[in-house]
Amino acid sequence: MRNQEAATDKPPSHLTYAAAGVDLDARRRFIERIRPIAQSTHRPEVLAGVGPFGGLFRLGSYREPVLVSSTDGVGTKVKIASLLGRYETIGVDVVNQSVNDVLTAGAEPLFFLDYIASSTLTADDKAALVEGAAQACREAGCALIGGETADLPDLYAAGDFDIAGFVVGVVEREALLDGSRIRAGDALLALPSSGLHTNGYALVRRALGVGLGSDAAAERARLERHEPELGTTLGEALLTPHRGYTRELRPVLARVKGAAHITGGGLPENVPRMLPAGLRARIDRASWAVPALFRLIQREGGIAEEEMWRAFNMGLGLVLAVDPSDAAAVRSALPEALAIGEVVSQEGDARVAWG
Amino acid sequence: MRNQEAATDKPPSHLTYAAAGVDLDARRRFIERIRPIAQSTHRPEVLAGVGPFGGLFRLGSYREPVLVSSTDGVGTKVKIASLLGRYETIGVDVVNQSVNDVLTAGAEPLFFLDYIASSTLTADDKAALVEGAAQACREAGCALIGGETADLPDLYAAGDFDIAGFVVGVVEREALLDGSRIRAGDALLALPSSGLHTNGYALVRRALGVGLGSDAAAERARLERHEPELGTTLGEALLTPHRGYTRELRPVLARVKGAAHITGGGLPENVPRMLPAGLRARIDRASWAVPALFRLIQREGGIAEEEMWRAFNMGLGLVLAVDPSDAAAVRSALPEALAIGEVVSQEGDARVAWG
Repeated sequence: MRNQEAATDKPPSHLTYAAAGVDLDARRRFIERIRPIAQSTHRPEVLAGVGPFGGLFRLGSYREPVLVSSTDGVGTKVKIASLLGRYETIGVDVVNQSVNDVLTAGAEPLFFLDYIASSTLTADDKAALVEGAAQACREAGCALIGGETADLPDLYAAGDFDIAGFVVGVVEREALLDGSRIRAGDALLALPSSGLHTNGYALVRRALGVGLGSDAAAERARLERHEPELGTTLGEALLTPHRGYTRELRPVLARVKGAAHITGGGLPENVPRMLPAGLRARIDRASWAVPALFRLIQREGGIAEEEMWRAFNMGLGLVLAVDPSDAAAVRSALPEALAIGEVVSQEGDARVAWG
Repeated sequence: MRNQEAATDKPPSHLTYAAAGVDLDARRRFIERIRPIAQSTHRPEVLAGVGPFGGLFRLGSYREPVLVSSTDGVGTKVKIASLLGRYETIGVDVVNQSVNDVLTAGAEPLFFLDYIASSTLTADDKAALVEGAAQACREAGCALIGGETADLPDLYAAGDFDIAGFVVGVVEREALLDGSRIRAGDALLALPSSGLHTNGYALVRRALGVGLGSDAAAERARLERHEPELGTTLGEALLTPHRGYTRELRPVLARVKGAAHITGGGLPENVPRMLPAGLRARIDRASWAVPALFRLIQREGGIAEEEMWRAFNMGLGLVLAVDPSDAAAVRSALPEALAIGEVVSQEGDARVAWG
């Protein structure tokens, strides 16, 4: 419009915020649309309808409450979601990956907030993200109490978006899982991951040649091809949501001395984070079968074995340290748990010994 | 490398996570680098060195604690920062805009987490963002307790980044500012904003032709030009950090019945958010001078007057409702406070009447 006007002294056009890519009316309609989705997650402690500039949560009665918080995004898994136009599972991802962090401290997740940023996602796309987040919040028992859905023209390319989540949980000080009770001889148990969870996607996308923005049709075709060794398409396998462990782990938390959420850095970086100084983990890589998806990625990308173990969870999402006398009870409560090794005295520098 | 190899059955190359844009070693060095910056904000309640998968904060003794949380980004203000290579003030922005939200509920901010995502920002750039956030956290008395700095290749263009923040505060239930005590006749006082704060940047960038990604050198020159009516350059004016109100407001909170943080939607959308049904705000636009920056933007963009009031704060960052009998005391404690109007009975649909 501006270009069609002759130069004059009067204002050259009537630029509006909506024309600049931020439609406040659409934004208000969107907030109304997601309100019931968020409300479906609410617990009695949520104070609704008051304090409109923030989410309000009444903390119950605790002797020595410790608040545990975590934030994370889902990495470039969003590029796969954009390419396939599938958003709901990403909402699940963003909740579970941060809720699992809080869980490793022995905490109960209380509430969650999401941050979604894009420039062209439709209201349907964004609502699907929120719907996925709400579903995972209900599953974990935490309230989706607030969030921000930002329209950021010129920052995100068409179809692209980013998402981050923020969770707060609570634990009594005396029940805080800080690993300090872990001793040499403790058993290491692990719960399987559901897939890549939310780590390693920059590497995966290069290894498989997808989500790189070159030829979207070819990339989509690659993702939609059935992979016999996976029993599904690559796209399905790559978008499998990050598994949340809250429901199954909480009943056995009293028998757990330490928990490690296997995210970026894989087993070698994350398992030591729960261990006191002077101890290391001996992990027997033969104690579980690395899922086919990881081997497919390794083969197609020509990725070295040690690099695989650093970049990916290799099939394990959560590692627990338990007293040997509790191992049977924990395994009976968690039928999927695998015995993957034990805690041993530190020798040399490596915090993980592969056995 | 891959292209130079002949096709064989052995892995075609040795793709690494670092080559894919995620350098785990650099990431670990960065975390070590920002650790002391975060620690400079810590309060005695922060449990450091334990629970490595989440931030831990011991909540003190409260009768009926209500946790107040908020999340937000800084909009496309990040585009201006990228263009000028200036990051620290954006770190201040991301804290203050969410801390102010928590403040409007009468809460004390306790802790903050940041989410920073980019693909090419240097460690220096990212550390400057964290340094700015830490500075604002210290000012507001809240602890920078955690965060995520994500490398997201292919999602962010060279130089681009996004940032979001999450804050948690606490308030006794009986001291919760929920606006319910606001009555017709209450005075409306306002504290000045420091500039655009973090809203309206999509519109500003179009109005001024900066941060649109067309000709970076020309855009930079426009931002670096001294603007006599601003007494500074446009770049300086546009990057002025979002003002935080925690320190000055907390001493008078007991005399405040409601507070509105003027963000997206401006005065017309945000002031009503603190008002009970049946009441509206009468605001006298002549009671303060709209700063020159807003008029410059309006003139260059040819933006209609009402659109300006919806997109920008127009010089006011926080609006308070106080009993007329408390107005003098509050104004004496807040010398910058302006009397901008009063609360009146609702008539018709508009929740704000311009007087």
